[in-house]
Amino acid sequence: MSLTTLRINADRMRADFDALAQIGATSDGGVHRPTFSDAHLAARAWFRAQIEQAGLAFRTDRAGNHSAFLQCADENAKTLLLGSHLDSVPNGGRFDGALGVCAALEVLRVVKENKIALTTNLEAIDFTDEEGTLVGFLGSAAIAGKLKPDDLKNPRGGRANLEAGLARAGLTEQGLFDAVRPRHSIAGYLELHIEQGRRLERAQKHIGVVTDIVGIGSYRLKFIGRADHAGTTPVQERRDAGQGASAFARAMREIIILNFPDCVANIGKMEFAPGAFNIVPASVIVSLEFRAPDEDSFARLETALIERAKVEARRFGLEIEIEFLGKHAPTPLSEKIQRAFAESCETLGLSWMPVVSGAGHDAQSLAPLWDAGMIFVPSVEGASHSPREWTEWQDCVNGANVLLQAALKLAMA
Amino acid sequence: MSLTTLRINADRMRADFDALAQIGATSDGGVHRPTFSDAHLAARAWFRAQIEQAGLAFRTDRAGNHSAFLQCADENAKTLLLGSHLDSVPNGGRFDGALGVCAALEVLRVVKENKIALTTNLEAIDFTDEEGTLVGFLGSAAIAGKLKPDDLKNPRGGRANLEAGLARAGLTEQGLFDAVRPRHSIAGYLELHIEQGRRLERAQKHIGVVTDIVGIGSYRLKFIGRADHAGTTPVQERRDAGQGASAFARAMREIIILNFPDCVANIGKMEFAPGAFNIVPASVIVSLEFRAPDEDSFARLETALIERAKVEARRFGLEIEIEFLGKHAPTPLSEKIQRAFAESCETLGLSWMPVVSGAGHDAQSLAPLWDAGMIFVPSVEGASHSPREWTEWQDCVNGANVLLQAALKLAMA
Repeated sequence: MSLTTLRINADRMRADFDALAQIGATSDGGVHRPTFSDAHLAARAWFRAQIEQAGLAFRTDRAGNHSAFLQCADENAKTLLLGSHLDSVPNGGRFDGALGVCAALEVLRVVKENKIALTTNLEAIDFTDEEGTLVGFLGSAAIAGKLKPDDLKNPRGGRANLEAGLARAGLTEQGLFDAVRPRHSIAGYLELHIEQGRRLERAQKHIGVVTDIVGIGSYRLKFIGRADHAGTTPVQERRDAGQGASAFARAMREIIILNFPDCVANIGKMEFAPGAFNIVPASVIVSLEFRAPDEDSFARLETALIERAKVEARRFGLEIEIEFLGKHAPTPLSEKIQRAFAESCETLGLSWMPVVSGAGHDAQSLAPLWDAGMIFVPSVEGASHSPREWTEWQDCVNGANVLLQAALKLAMA
Repeated sequence: MSLTTLRINADRMRADFDALAQIGATSDGGVHRPTFSDAHLAARAWFRAQIEQAGLAFRTDRAGNHSAFLQCADENAKTLLLGSHLDSVPNGGRFDGALGVCAALEVLRVVKENKIALTTNLEAIDFTDEEGTLVGFLGSAAIAGKLKPDDLKNPRGGRANLEAGLARAGLTEQGLFDAVRPRHSIAGYLELHIEQGRRLERAQKHIGVVTDIVGIGSYRLKFIGRADHAGTTPVQERRDAGQGASAFARAMREIIILNFPDCVANIGKMEFAPGAFNIVPASVIVSLEFRAPDEDSFARLETALIERAKVEARRFGLEIEIEFLGKHAPTPLSEKIQRAFAESCETLGLSWMPVVSGAGHDAQSLAPLWDAGMIFVPSVEGASHSPREWTEWQDCVNGANVLLQAALKLAMA
């Protein structure tokens, strides 16, 4: 048989996908599966049962990553990873992560049942804590040896959550560092994911081949003014921290539109203190995040935003404290894998376009060490991290078939 | 003796004022005496002891107002109230309220020890809950019969605080309504207070004679957008509630500066939801307060702000929910009492100017029924509701002497 005619079993994958969507289902059609919550652990138990039912080997590691493993004939072969994640953001959608895990499992089943002789092992992996309930990209950072003890000291979900979560999953902090994989053991990483944006829908393309994952920077900016009586202090005489923060929020949007059209920035929160109706705000803490597709625009955008924050603070007589919280560097993905995906689309008669991922993914942990690549399928109206998240089922099937074809290509090289 | 040569005993008043500043003193030189806190009750016990030590009659009512009373020869005489309040905002200053109570008590002592024969009773009153830990202007609203059961249903300090506070002070909710005074029993109300602004300091005037107390309006404005993934949603496609709220905050300041120079407005707080770094804010709740010196400018400012909020919401594709929280109407004070204060300043050789009070005071509860008036003394740098609050002692003495002279004038008419 010609491998190019091989297709995933769409009905079987659909049954998996629908079963998974019931685990941690919310009343509005989404799912709620924060890392190591009961629903998340139930989803992982379901995944393990599917693996064993398919006659694949189940594997786990000390970072809690769960995998289906399909050994090839060569005992010294490298392993091609296919995967995504089963955790979700709070009240998230049913596609983000789950689609990629179902597709990866299905690829292994198709290869096994068709007895395809590969030169590379296949592993369908569910990475721990991609969404960052606890740390973010925890499982992929662990296997890449990128995880550092400092990452666990003040994680984004808080220390207490991390400790409780690890305990619930039967993991230990020290064990996380033991999950690192030998560099030579891995052949590469492929992931199917929903786009979480509207570019494919607008361009009417089936598949997005990801060229880069954006860099993400985050800051806490504290504009500091003076608490004054709001009834007796004329507005011109105030040092109103709210004015500086608001002017910066407006400026942030203009900076992106005018000078950085390929980038985004967000102020997710402003915290006013003391917070009374009749007191001029003495301080406002701004939660700032920005994303850029490459190192050069990342650095220029970072400078533009921070310098503007200083200017707006000065303009209203405020002090400013600038706290850098962290950065994920912009990550170019493997050109070899981009080619394999593009060729698979051509083989399958599917339209495709190159896209930059505006969201972070486990591939960014892996790409510095191994060939890593991703494809996106269209998100209806671009909705994401929301129960409104939706992808037409045929698009999911298309994506899984591209994943299958690319995996065959790379695992027989 | 000529009454115009009578002066308060500055050293005695100073001893009182300093003793009072120790009750609920904070490490930074302010006081913390929220209504019916231990410190507040201690301050009231101290006041009662001073009243009795001076040989004045102590009176209290079912709203918890505490008074020194000096009966004149005429048993049917009306009573001229002099006073202020001993409660403070959390971590407030030592002058706000306390100065007016000390001065009122001192006026009664001077009249008593000089055996001045008045035709009106004098009462030095400490009003309950001026600052609004529980309800705001509670004691003065009670004696004016202005307090309504609805005011107690959802008070600004919360129901639980009100119930606990009343119990701590030995008061009952029903009793509050029994504190109402017969209209014919009161001759008027005089209060000495710190300015809480910088107009007197700038104009280098000793005394501000208050012509009006501003009207205060408050609203809760909810800008409603859509939660989107902040990495994958271009800024032009967002419905970012933070942009609408920020644009409104900036517009509010411009509206005041350009069109309402006699008014103020404040955004004390913005609450972002869901509040994550990587999610476009779906909603922002804005706490808006504004103040205007007369009904006409109050109504025009209210319209200008609310209409502008709607415009900014539309501009960013947002919905807006507008919740009116309440209003204190602008209150003109008695012209008769303004004249008495002005003439007293002239007698004492003190410079004065008419001023509008940007803060609310108990006088606004009383002015619709009785002649009510206030004088201000300069606040250094205008600081207020803050440990930085300061008034030079000579200015305090000047204010107390104007209060004495005006009281003599009005109580002998």
